[in-house]
Amino acid sequence: MAEAMLAQDDGRSVGIVERQFFTFGSEEEPFVLENRQTLPEVTTCYEMYGALNAAADNVILITHGLTGSSHAAGRYRPDSPYAGYWDPLIGPGKVFDTERYCVIAPNALGGCRGSTGPASINPRTGREYGLEFPIITIRDMVRVQKRLMEHLGVQRLRLVVGGSMGGMQALEWAVTYPEMVDSICPIASSARNSAQAIAFNECMRRAIMLDPNWNRGEYYGGPKPAGGLALARMIGTITYLSDSIMEEMFGRKPAMEETPLEHELHRRFDVERYLHDEGEKLVRRFDANSYLYVTRAIDMHDISRGYASLEEAYRRIQAKVLLIGIRSDILFYPHRIREMHESLRRLGIASAYWEMDSDYGHDAFLVEQEKMIPPLREFLASLDAGQA
Amino acid sequence: MAEAMLAQDDGRSVGIVERQFFTFGSEEEPFVLENRQTLPEVTTCYEMYGALNAAADNVILITHGLTGSSHAAGRYRPDSPYAGYWDPLIGPGKVFDTERYCVIAPNALGGCRGSTGPASINPRTGREYGLEFPIITIRDMVRVQKRLMEHLGVQRLRLVVGGSMGGMQALEWAVTYPEMVDSICPIASSARNSAQAIAFNECMRRAIMLDPNWNRGEYYGGPKPAGGLALARMIGTITYLSDSIMEEMFGRKPAMEETPLEHELHRRFDVERYLHDEGEKLVRRFDANSYLYVTRAIDMHDISRGYASLEEAYRRIQAKVLLIGIRSDILFYPHRIREMHESLRRLGIASAYWEMDSDYGHDAFLVEQEKMIPPLREFLASLDAGQA
Repeated sequence: MAEAMLAQDDGRSVGIVERQFFTFGSEEEPFVLENRQTLPEVTTCYEMYGALNAAADNVILITHGLTGSSHAAGRYRPDSPYAGYWDPLIGPGKVFDTERYCVIAPNALGGCRGSTGPASINPRTGREYGLEFPIITIRDMVRVQKRLMEHLGVQRLRLVVGGSMGGMQALEWAVTYPEMVDSICPIASSARNSAQAIAFNECMRRAIMLDPNWNRGEYYGGPKPAGGLALARMIGTITYLSDSIMEEMFGRKPAMEETPLEHELHRRFDVERYLHDEGEKLVRRFDANSYLYVTRAIDMHDISRGYASLEEAYRRIQAKVLLIGIRSDILFYPHRIREMHESLRRLGIASAYWEMDSDYGHDAFLVEQEKMIPPLREFLASLDAGQA
Repeated sequence: MAEAMLAQDDGRSVGIVERQFFTFGSEEEPFVLENRQTLPEVTTCYEMYGALNAAADNVILITHGLTGSSHAAGRYRPDSPYAGYWDPLIGPGKVFDTERYCVIAPNALGGCRGSTGPASINPRTGREYGLEFPIITIRDMVRVQKRLMEHLGVQRLRLVVGGSMGGMQALEWAVTYPEMVDSICPIASSARNSAQAIAFNECMRRAIMLDPNWNRGEYYGGPKPAGGLALARMIGTITYLSDSIMEEMFGRKPAMEETPLEHELHRRFDVERYLHDEGEKLVRRFDANSYLYVTRAIDMHDISRGYASLEEAYRRIQAKVLLIGIRSDILFYPHRIREMHESLRRLGIASAYWEMDSDYGHDAFLVEQEKMIPPLREFLASLDAGQA
């Protein structure tokens, strides 16, 4: 995996990258959230690959999923085995060509990878926000990104593209700031979160809150609710895959490395070992309170909020739209995405739909991202040609 | 719901029923489990509707799912609003006709509804087993049922029928005691548990074990791990439904009755309320340790264990087989069940496959059980006619 990634650095990498930070707001001029609560200070962590052109209209904005970060491409250190999560898509000559486009990848509001979230220090108290952090929405995330764009002098977004929660942000961009967005590509995403997805999110939140170390969100400086967050990730992991790929990857294989058994009920099948590993990995890089707030933002996601109907929200879209579904996705079923496409078309919006043929389920937009290169290339070319 | 059930008692009910108990084993002659551990005493709780005929070959054995019980038909009290879970299928003149068949419904080993399980008193210690209860398997459940049949003088089983884990037991019956079983009808079930189903089960177990009240299984007499068991049930509940029925039942409706909010992150959508209710309901009637042991038995389920191959296990089957799949089932996908049917046919086993057209997902074998009446009636008639 690491080797394969290193091998891709054949002069087409964005190279060594670093995180940048933009902070705005004050007690006098706080950022007012959708729910009317305020944040006195908002920091956005972001990465930028390529340069803004004179017209400041060559930006591709990359919006990430639930546990993602600003690290979409390149490496932090020359010896790092890991490149950004969409490195094969971003770089000189790649589909998101950094010789032509200015690619900007922010960490979302509410996250824990450099942007303001519940683990940040609340300037009003001098302590971590914890549960004092206000409820945020996908639209709030987008409104913060708009401030970042203003700060950077960006005039237009050529494309807003992201998978899962990233796709929700892309849609919100097109609805909230229609005059600013040339095109969007929401991947494995939705215009409003489904009942089943809400249900899974609620189970994941309950897992975190069940952990005694969660302590109503006040665990900073003490033991973290690692068991709860790991279980949340285990549940999520199932929904990011598909039945068929799990059968292929694990089937009924026993766990390869049997660790000392706490009890016979533990660790029997390889699929269990995989879930445990995924859970433990997330614990090392993610904040449990962020997980609560960001999943809640996903549940609240409904681009029609504030408009008379979903149709009316859709009608605001001026961007050209490429919707991508994944055949085996059990979190954002492709037939739902196709329905969205058909609704957009009926309203005269320039929408295209492409379905990725993959067994990897929801995760395919990461695991098999190369499959998206031809439709993305074609879509960007159609923008140049001024076609639908 | 209650009214509808009462209305069905038009002289076709089995009437008032009661639980019966059969206990066997001793320290000298314990019941030896598949894993070679022993139980000095095994009690099976069961219900019986209809009478055994002279040849003792008119038995329909009903095997239940994960959290089921022996209460398949009738009522415990005349004023009880709730009938057994398959009441529309069982009674005089019904498809499982108690004027002709002797219907026997046992509570499975490891359960907590009258049969021996981890909440039972261990005769060796005088305390609840807890985690000292041995690992059990679906085959062990069936071997205990075989002892019950011997005790009752049953010579042959006309049919073994059950949904989900009940279907696993039906398959084990046909493989383990082929000479005794005329026919089986496994519904929404499998010959071995899938990786995805194992993964969900492991998440549910982790939820229970994450609850500080679980206390490594020693909670009897103290506070129960209610939060953990409820979360386990919440996760399970999602897998028992389908995306489309959840969208229809709940969509993005807000919770109708807003209970005092612990925190804004709680209780927003009706689907969340539903999951919480389902969780709380299970806590009142089920033991958390039983949940651990029975889900583990489901994961270990593989009818080929001890045989050279799955095919070799299948070849042992002498029973006629009716496999039922549910179109929208996301726990036991119908295409898998169809594959099992095709494997059986290739080996010359008399197998039929019928797919229930339902949006209710896995739960359809309970929620829309009436839909199964025609194929079940036809299957039983074909046995009489001696057809395949």
